Formats: sequence, structure tokens, C-alpha cells
Amino acid sequence: METIVDKGMLYDFYGALLTDRQREIYEDTVYHDLSLAEIAENRGISRQGVADLLKRSTKTLAEYEEKLGMIRRFKTIDALCDEIDAASPDAARLTKRIRKEL
Amino acid sequence: METIVDKGMLYDFYGALLTDRQREIYEDTVYHDLSLAEIAENRGISRQGVADLLKRSTKTLAEYEEKLGMIRRFKTIDALCDEIDAASPDAARLTKRIRKEL
Repeated sequence: METIVDKGMLYDFYGALLTDRQREIYEDTVYHDLSLAEIAENRGISRQGVADLLKRSTKTLAEYEEKLGMIRRFKTIDALCDEIDAASPDAARLTKRIRKEL
Repeated sequence: METIVDKGMLYDFYGALLTDRQREIYEDTVYHDLSLAEIAENRGISRQGVADLLKRSTKTLAEYEEKLGMIRRFKTIDALCDEIDAASPDAARLTKRIRKEL
């Protein structure tokens, strides 16, 4: 079962590949923490319609991660930056810049 | 005008998002260096059909890069790894592992 954090991360990395409508509704739930009922009312669609759209969007985002693995790779790089920081404190300025790309 | 190298890089990063058929034909030209005429003959389609498919595939791959920027980000990280190597030779073992993720 995915958590809100995982969904947020999927969205951060791959949200640009969703449609505008999918993005808006995804942000309503993941970032603005609105309930399905609130989103449904705001958008004039059914609660089930919102639930279906979110489920499809999450599936789409998860499929992109499965194929491209950006999150997996960036997590590995982030952990390696921790190791570099520990081994070579002088490099912290540079690992900070790497982290900004992640 | 894109070079073969750029196309190869686009394919390396985003090829998993193409269809099987697009992937096969893309590899024929980018990796196996076959001509349009050769691909057309092997596949039993017109030369123009091959050219169109390749053009569409490249456009698709370039759109993914525009939206996700993996190549741009990984190039930046690679350059930062060079700087880390220069500043902290002890970290080379770790930057090598970062590069393997790129």
C-alpha cells in the first residue's frame, strides 16, 4: 500500500507527464490534503470519479518509475552523497549541488 | 539538428517508454547503424515509413527529456563528480558508484 509520501515523490518526479486535469486533482489530494468529497464538490464530479482518476494517475506514475527508475537512482545517489560527506567533508559544497539536482 | 550521439543518449534514457516496434527500429539505426533502405527491406515497410517512425520516436523521446530533464540533470551530476574527484581524490570510489547510476 502506498503512502502519501510515496505518492508525493512519484508526483514530484513524474507529475509533468500527467494531463493538466490529472495534475490538478493529484495536487488537491497530495499537496492540499483535500478529501475525495471536497475535490468532487469543487470539481463538480462524482466522488467515485475522483477516486478512479487518482488511482489511474498513481498507476501511470508508478509505471513510469518502473520503466525509468529515477526515484530509485536518485535515492542511491543521495545515499552515496552521504558517504562522500562522511569521507570527505571538503566535498560538502559539491554534494550539496548534486542534491539540488535530485 | 540532432546528432547520432544525442539520439543514442535520448534512447538510453527514455527508450523504455517507446513501443517494442519503435525500439527495434530505433536500435537498427542508432546502434546497428543500418540505413533507412536496409531497415525498410528487413521490416517489409517503405523507406518513408521507417523515416516517419524514427522521426516520431525521436520527437517522443525529446518530449520526455523536455518534461523530465534526466539527461540534463545527470550531465550536471557527472560534472560535479569530476569536481569532487579533483577536490577529494579519496572520494573517487564513491563518485564511481554515482556514475554507475547515471
